[in-house]
Amino acid sequence: MSAFADRMADAVRRDGPLCVGLDPRFDMLPAYYRKFARGFAVESFCLKVLELVRPFCSVVKPQAAFFELLGPEGFSAMQSVLWRARELGFVTILDAKRGDIASTAAAYAEAAFSESVWNADALTVNPYLGQDAVEPFLKAARSATPARGLFVLVRTSNRGGGLFQNRLCDGVPLYRRVADEVNDWNAGGLGECGLGDVGAVVGATHPKELAELRAAMPGVWFLVPGYGAQGGTAADVRAGFLPGGTGAVVNSSRGVVFPFEPDDPDWEKKIVGAARKAQAELRGAGAG
Amino acid sequence: MSAFADRMADAVRRDGPLCVGLDPRFDMLPAYYRKFARGFAVESFCLKVLELVRPFCSVVKPQAAFFELLGPEGFSAMQSVLWRARELGFVTILDAKRGDIASTAAAYAEAAFSESVWNADALTVNPYLGQDAVEPFLKAARSATPARGLFVLVRTSNRGGGLFQNRLCDGVPLYRRVADEVNDWNAGGLGECGLGDVGAVVGATHPKELAELRAAMPGVWFLVPGYGAQGGTAADVRAGFLPGGTGAVVNSSRGVVFPFEPDDPDWEKKIVGAARKAQAELRGAGAG
Repeated sequence: MSAFADRMADAVRRDGPLCVGLDPRFDMLPAYYRKFARGFAVESFCLKVLELVRPFCSVVKPQAAFFELLGPEGFSAMQSVLWRARELGFVTILDAKRGDIASTAAAYAEAAFSESVWNADALTVNPYLGQDAVEPFLKAARSATPARGLFVLVRTSNRGGGLFQNRLCDGVPLYRRVADEVNDWNAGGLGECGLGDVGAVVGATHPKELAELRAAMPGVWFLVPGYGAQGGTAADVRAGFLPGGTGAVVNSSRGVVFPFEPDDPDWEKKIVGAARKAQAELRGAGAG
Repeated sequence: MSAFADRMADAVRRDGPLCVGLDPRFDMLPAYYRKFARGFAVESFCLKVLELVRPFCSVVKPQAAFFELLGPEGFSAMQSVLWRARELGFVTILDAKRGDIASTAAAYAEAAFSESVWNADALTVNPYLGQDAVEPFLKAARSATPARGLFVLVRTSNRGGGLFQNRLCDGVPLYRRVADEVNDWNAGGLGECGLGDVGAVVGATHPKELAELRAAMPGVWFLVPGYGAQGGTAADVRAGFLPGGTGAVVNSSRGVVFPFEPDDPDWEKKIVGAARKAQAELRGAGAG
């Protein structure tokens, strides 16, 4: 039974720290797929993307919102994509930013990790509701086989993310208070690699805070959004890594999955090219 | 074109401030329903509950987590329940506590309000990601026909909700900072009733803070969870109302929907009885 943190470490050592985000938008799909019903089109395209990017990364992050937008059939597509990704050997992070209390949080967690629903390896979680709201997620992650992980929102990549996250609480920004809690939760699920099972979402678009949080959370996996289409560069994400190039995965969604116009016949080559380039850039960033 | 706030006011004036929460748990369903596949069972039971409680309330709140737990078929059930509730004249609040940034937030919002997906009247939203994360939800709510509303988490009902929400930021608890923003957002969508389209979730389990927030947010609709099974009493929620008994809806989920053991043949009567009692209690609380 391998710890979640060790599965992450294996993935990053093998294929580098690129995480490919699956944010499928029907209108951006290659022309061939747009002939089909939306749910089937999105599912088929994502399954194709998984094959194309497989040599260049071992972590993928389906974004629940874009599947939800297609209603129940969208969730069928999401299930198919998550299950297939797992079969192909990816570590899967379901980006759904769930957060609720008590039995409701337990229901979200069971959906995320149970074999019959999403069966994801990790789930993104919003911390605003506090400790007893995060605990049901943690309990479900640790009791699953194999054990799963969480990524808690600490400092998000959007321009206005500081409205509450950067408020000074007793002289310290709120995101540091959240980081303290993540450190505590994480300490209960350390793997052999020295890292734990409660990661932190920290945006690439705030490099100074990324460095500060890396120092404050030495045993925590980082999921770093904001690289690529959102403006973060390889230099910006460098501070997110631990020595040895581990400790972080860096997400690219549109930059890798949609580097083409919808009518471009060379879309497959362009996805492969974008994934190869991102892998190389981020391996370089991880190596310092 | 009636404003969201006015539709809420009509609902509460007509049938009182009870909001029935639909948190369907397969294992708690009456024996008859447990013979069927889970998605169908949950859907059929919820549709029955809508009919049973119709005389006693005009606001219902499906909890997305319990539908998600059943996978794609669960979301088919959720869609059916939301659509039917609307047809029966309920104001529907989809309790999904969504929160994300930019085009991802826009995708969640479109899913919540578009006729072809959930078509809910309102959505619960988590504010941790900041202003530019709430704006896509607001924009979608205001551009829909009829206009929709949001309920932003301000002070949640769970025991540990204060971990971040009650942190002092420049001498003021974080939940008051969130309340200030809600006031600003809400001011842009006032109806003839004087209230607006950005409501606040404020738990019944913190009566002092409920009173404080009522005074601080005089034009804001409150969604008050924590009454009934979570321990909040009619006396506890009194401070949530404005003079005239408007300004708040009080949610009861298990207390109204599951007031019976699974094998009780009198479950329909018990739901009707629980809804009637909650309506009367909460009308009394609203009347001061």
